[in-house]
Amino acid sequence: MFEAAEVGNKLDKTTYKRKAPGVRAALLAVQRRIAASPLAPVIVIGGAEGAGKSETMALLHEWMDARGLETNVLFDLTDEERERPEYWRFWRVLPPKGKIGIFFGSWYSGLIVDRVYERIDENAFQRELSRIRGFERMLTLEGVPVLKYWLHLSKADEKKRIKQLASNPRARWRLHRSAWKFFKRYDDFRSVSERALRETSLGYAPWTVVEAADTEYRNLTVATSVLEALEDALAEVETRAAKRAGPKPPLPKPARVNVIRRLDLSRSLTTKVYDSRLEAAEADVGRLSQKLAKAGRSLIVVFEGPDAGGKGGAIRRLTGAMSPYLYRVTGIAAPTDEERAHPYLWRFWRALPRRGRVTVYDRSWYGRVLVERIEGFARPDEWRRAYAEINEFEEQLAESGNIIVKFWLAISADEQLRRFKDRQTTPYKQYKITEDDWRNRAKWDAYEAAACDMIERTSTEYAPWVLVEANDKRWARVKVVETVRDHLRDRR
Amino acid sequence: MFEAAEVGNKLDKTTYKRKAPGVRAALLAVQRRIAASPLAPVIVIGGAEGAGKSETMALLHEWMDARGLETNVLFDLTDEERERPEYWRFWRVLPPKGKIGIFFGSWYSGLIVDRVYERIDENAFQRELSRIRGFERMLTLEGVPVLKYWLHLSKADEKKRIKQLASNPRARWRLHRSAWKFFKRYDDFRSVSERALRETSLGYAPWTVVEAADTEYRNLTVATSVLEALEDALAEVETRAAKRAGPKPPLPKPARVNVIRRLDLSRSLTTKVYDSRLEAAEADVGRLSQKLAKAGRSLIVVFEGPDAGGKGGAIRRLTGAMSPYLYRVTGIAAPTDEERAHPYLWRFWRALPRRGRVTVYDRSWYGRVLVERIEGFARPDEWRRAYAEINEFEEQLAESGNIIVKFWLAISADEQLRRFKDRQTTPYKQYKITEDDWRNRAKWDAYEAAACDMIERTSTEYAPWVLVEANDKRWARVKVVETVRDHLRDRR
Repeated sequence: MFEAAEVGNKLDKTTYKRKAPGVRAALLAVQRRIAASPLAPVIVIGGAEGAGKSETMALLHEWMDARGLETNVLFDLTDEERERPEYWRFWRVLPPKGKIGIFFGSWYSGLIVDRVYERIDENAFQRELSRIRGFERMLTLEGVPVLKYWLHLSKADEKKRIKQLASNPRARWRLHRSAWKFFKRYDDFRSVSERALRETSLGYAPWTVVEAADTEYRNLTVATSVLEALEDALAEVETRAAKRAGPKPPLPKPARVNVIRRLDLSRSLTTKVYDSRLEAAEADVGRLSQKLAKAGRSLIVVFEGPDAGGKGGAIRRLTGAMSPYLYRVTGIAAPTDEERAHPYLWRFWRALPRRGRVTVYDRSWYGRVLVERIEGFARPDEWRRAYAEINEFEEQLAESGNIIVKFWLAISADEQLRRFKDRQTTPYKQYKITEDDWRNRAKWDAYEAAACDMIERTSTEYAPWVLVEANDKRWARVKVVETVRDHLRDRR
Repeated sequence: MFEAAEVGNKLDKTTYKRKAPGVRAALLAVQRRIAASPLAPVIVIGGAEGAGKSETMALLHEWMDARGLETNVLFDLTDEERERPEYWRFWRVLPPKGKIGIFFGSWYSGLIVDRVYERIDENAFQRELSRIRGFERMLTLEGVPVLKYWLHLSKADEKKRIKQLASNPRARWRLHRSAWKFFKRYDDFRSVSERALRETSLGYAPWTVVEAADTEYRNLTVATSVLEALEDALAEVETRAAKRAGPKPPLPKPARVNVIRRLDLSRSLTTKVYDSRLEAAEADVGRLSQKLAKAGRSLIVVFEGPDAGGKGGAIRRLTGAMSPYLYRVTGIAAPTDEERAHPYLWRFWRALPRRGRVTVYDRSWYGRVLVERIEGFARPDEWRRAYAEINEFEEQLAESGNIIVKFWLAISADEQLRRFKDRQTTPYKQYKITEDDWRNRAKWDAYEAAACDMIERTSTEYAPWVLVEANDKRWARVKVVETVRDHLRDRR
């Protein structure tokens, strides 16, 4: 890939001065269109030491409206970042719709260095590249086009450039403190970078390798390419908007025999058995959750299921066993406008707890493939790819030390009706029942079918679904608390 | 204050069981009213070791809807917190309107411990208490009622309680690891806490001291008091809404002689002088900003002034001198709904950079006393108290190592008209001029008067206003860059 960027591309200053104002005006114009669009582009700038990454950044700041740019320097980790999955730091600084993020350092930087210094083996390297492909694909489809620039210098040019910078007191700070150390590994860096670029240069997020030895050529090439890529992304949005107008797909129907219908909803416990088993399980959960915190691991418990399925009651039994300092219950309400201005998983990434905590989700990211699917808030292509995106998300959670348990609280349609009526007549329960609940109930079959799809496609070894027979609240609560206990015990 | 909480208050279990359901239902009801209100209450729970702080938290979680509660444990600092002013960690977790925040540990905890162990002297203690009064007053007036509970135990009761907990394997984790160490200092803690509470127990945010030896009494007292305080806050909101309907005050008029009119707007520089002085100043700023970063200090530069005053151009000259990794330009647009759901300073607190960075604000928190005052977005009582709130904000920034420079770019009304017309006829400048600009221009005098008030009331030693004669862009830009250089030099 790099050979084409070692041919001595140059641009004379006169041509540059003639062409620059036009590109600059066009960049400003396209930035204004971005500001009014649902796009939040990210520009990744990588490349050789001394190739002019910071000058390129400065150029973009000068030629565009700096108020619409968010620059992020992503090298050293803070401890808050260290205590969360690796990609948290990238998610947290994704720009909102209408803004452009410039990333100096990215999900490539650490990876390339780690491979050059053989801190990771080829398998891990390939796995990470595959993760990057999924990540960038998701971003692109969610309205975050990823523009990637690699500023390349030949070995001779890089040596010359480092010497130049090192001997100029006013420019020396531009050099990385390990510039010479890295230079000794030039060939390794070149080979690893080339592979990383080749394997992540796909249609939706291609790399642009820029020969960086000549300032004018470099500047104009990057600026022109950013311009074109943003225009393409805007055109793509219009195409997509046209497609969106298609007919709504029919509601899904559940298979006659499925994992939910196979449950024996008559299972129940007597009060006496309930009391003793719950007490024992709660005591264990209390103790084990303390151990978990001390070990710096985390627990994520997800609750999904029909309205009035008993999520609230089960959650209270579970959290009642733990120190309130350790846990947080997150109820998923309608997204805020900041959340809507980002990819749908952003709101969950941003709220990820630090290590050592327990987070209980009363409904979760699974809304994407349940309510958003059924109500048409997400298009078919959006919720279909969500299964893989969610698996990938949970895999990252698991890798960074989270124990994940997901509960589906299953009740029968009759039981739901009984509970709805009870809520309507009990004063302190009335707030729990709304028009939405009745509307959702009318689509019972569609929700059941969506739930079956979800359970099938997102039950993984690292984040299994546990189906809970919940017509009897005692049975359901004991099963929830005991299951959490077992996971805390087995997977510590 | 504590004597009244050592009288042996008790509640028998029968009375408790009779009264609890009513309080519980009322709490749920008031929480639903809060959810629909512009209030975001904060409940601070402090008190003796083993007095039942975590049980009280658990009680609130059990009796209220946990999805509307956000619990925050605020003891150990993360490094991201350490690199910002002390109160950043509290601001970042303030609940949004409609939710209730429960703070375990608060702005009192560190302060009391520091005073007991004499890490701070009496003066610093008093100064912090005064800061707390201002903070809580501001919160209350901004729709964040602060409910403060101190769970008290007499010395004998505390000793008994620690022994009890320590001997119960299932409850031992509830004890702070320094419980016995703290107990040895019981008298000191009592005296310091009592003073802290007395001096911060004011009408808008009183402390409720609760005798904590009897569980039933403690639970019912806290729950009832939370209920009453939330009801009071809701009533207060209605009163305020009624007041809001009053007539709009007249627009302010500027004094005939004032700081802005006294400026000599004819000041200018030749191109030659401009080039050489700018180049020299930019080189200094580049070098000094690197030193600043290494020293772990930060620079905040605020730009305010009439539309077309040349803020953008001055900012580009200033940032052009610095590494793009170091600085961020923040343009202040309309607040997002999350920002609107918090006190007005929240959006600025949340965006505070870590140590070592430079942040340039293209307009800022001063919008409160400029556009919001003139356009009536803030009520007179709101913008009037904003001067003191802003001074306090900037004082905290300065204390945590920020160098703050604030520029007012002054142009004449004629010069503004000339620039507006130029923008209308130059293609790549047209985006800079909007209807709003013409509307603001019609209120020129009112804006000038508001600016004079602002400069007079918020120019402090630690965050001075610098007035810049800006009819000549060269003069203005050189003055800006040279002023920043001088501040970097003098105040490092």
